[in-house]
Amino acid sequence: MLLCDVGNTSYDFLDDDKNYKESVETFNPHAITKKVFYICVNPHAKKILEGLSNWVDMSGHVDMSNYYETMGVDRIFACEAVSDGIIIDAGSAVTVDVVNDGIFEGGFIYPGIRAMEQTYKNISSVLDYSFNFELNFDIMPKNSQDAISYGYLKTFFSEVMRHDMEIFLTGGDADKFAKLFPHAKIDKNLIFNGMKKIIKKADLC
Amino acid sequence: MLLCDVGNTSYDFLDDDKNYKESVETFNPHAITKKVFYICVNPHAKKILEGLSNWVDMSGHVDMSNYYETMGVDRIFACEAVSDGIIIDAGSAVTVDVVNDGIFEGGFIYPGIRAMEQTYKNISSVLDYSFNFELNFDIMPKNSQDAISYGYLKTFFSEVMRHDMEIFLTGGDADKFAKLFPHAKIDKNLIFNGMKKIIKKADLC
Repeated sequence: MLLCDVGNTSYDFLDDDKNYKESVETFNPHAITKKVFYICVNPHAKKILEGLSNWVDMSGHVDMSNYYETMGVDRIFACEAVSDGIIIDAGSAVTVDVVNDGIFEGGFIYPGIRAMEQTYKNISSVLDYSFNFELNFDIMPKNSQDAISYGYLKTFFSEVMRHDMEIFLTGGDADKFAKLFPHAKIDKNLIFNGMKKIIKKADLC
Repeated sequence: MLLCDVGNTSYDFLDDDKNYKESVETFNPHAITKKVFYICVNPHAKKILEGLSNWVDMSGHVDMSNYYETMGVDRIFACEAVSDGIIIDAGSAVTVDVVNDGIFEGGFIYPGIRAMEQTYKNISSVLDYSFNFELNFDIMPKNSQDAISYGYLKTFFSEVMRHDMEIFLTGGDADKFAKLFPHAKIDKNLIFNGMKKIIKKADLC
């Protein structure tokens, strides 16, 4: 079975148990002739894929009553993979979603690492640092790198921890955020797991 | 007595009890011939002001032993104005500093409102919203505007509140943040108050 999660920068594939990526800039989806189950947040790719009969859009197969209309379909499928927990999908944005007894309870959106480092740099060249993921959150910072790291990471950390739920980490920066949440379950295939669950439920395959 | 706080975008003056601003782009500091006590975080303006004998740089008159070398001098003077409390200076960056019994305990730096709105917009056009300062923080968001507002504001709010100290609000966006902290003391002249305190202590005037 071939699954694809189309984002703003890449087509992420899972071919049985093999993961691979293709750039949205260069990849031609016509090149695949077998059946592909996909979700897509990329408006440009969406238009192309709608015209291809072997590409099966899965977004219509989820019960949307618990979600909201403008919620990214990747967040929805990650939620579908989890019964109870807080899901952190760390990419260009960091989305945080709470699922309680199989029901989406709400979530929030935080800027991703690169976006936020760029933000500080744009405010002032004296704030041009990488974030310190080893920062001790128990001490108020007394240097510039730690002062921005605390601003970005400590505030985020406290909000996630207050929910006191199992933490699921996915997305390209999952490994970095794992330093903050050492007990989190890292699952780079969380969205694909959600897709498999829906395929089974909807009897699509 | 004429005081001036030179930032990255403006010269902020306090002439006895009258506040006014001049743009760093157009203002010529040679135009002022009387004595000006100033602090300056703007590297370009700093060079010009060093050559003017009636402009008195106050940065050397603070005991730096409690602060750190790269800390913005505006943050330092705001801290000097407060004996006990948490100071939020909301401008292009939002700085948060804790002062305990007259001693600076540390602080952090968060992006300002406009910088952060731009960050979300740059991540995706679907995140192009103004922040909702009326958001109910007790409910996890289920729409895009609230999802980014929660990411920016709730995480910040919780961090400030956990210190359980008197909150002092200053800077151009103090009024907006006052919606989150209705019991905060708003004082747009906090930095000038710190300057006055140091002028008195150092017997400069």
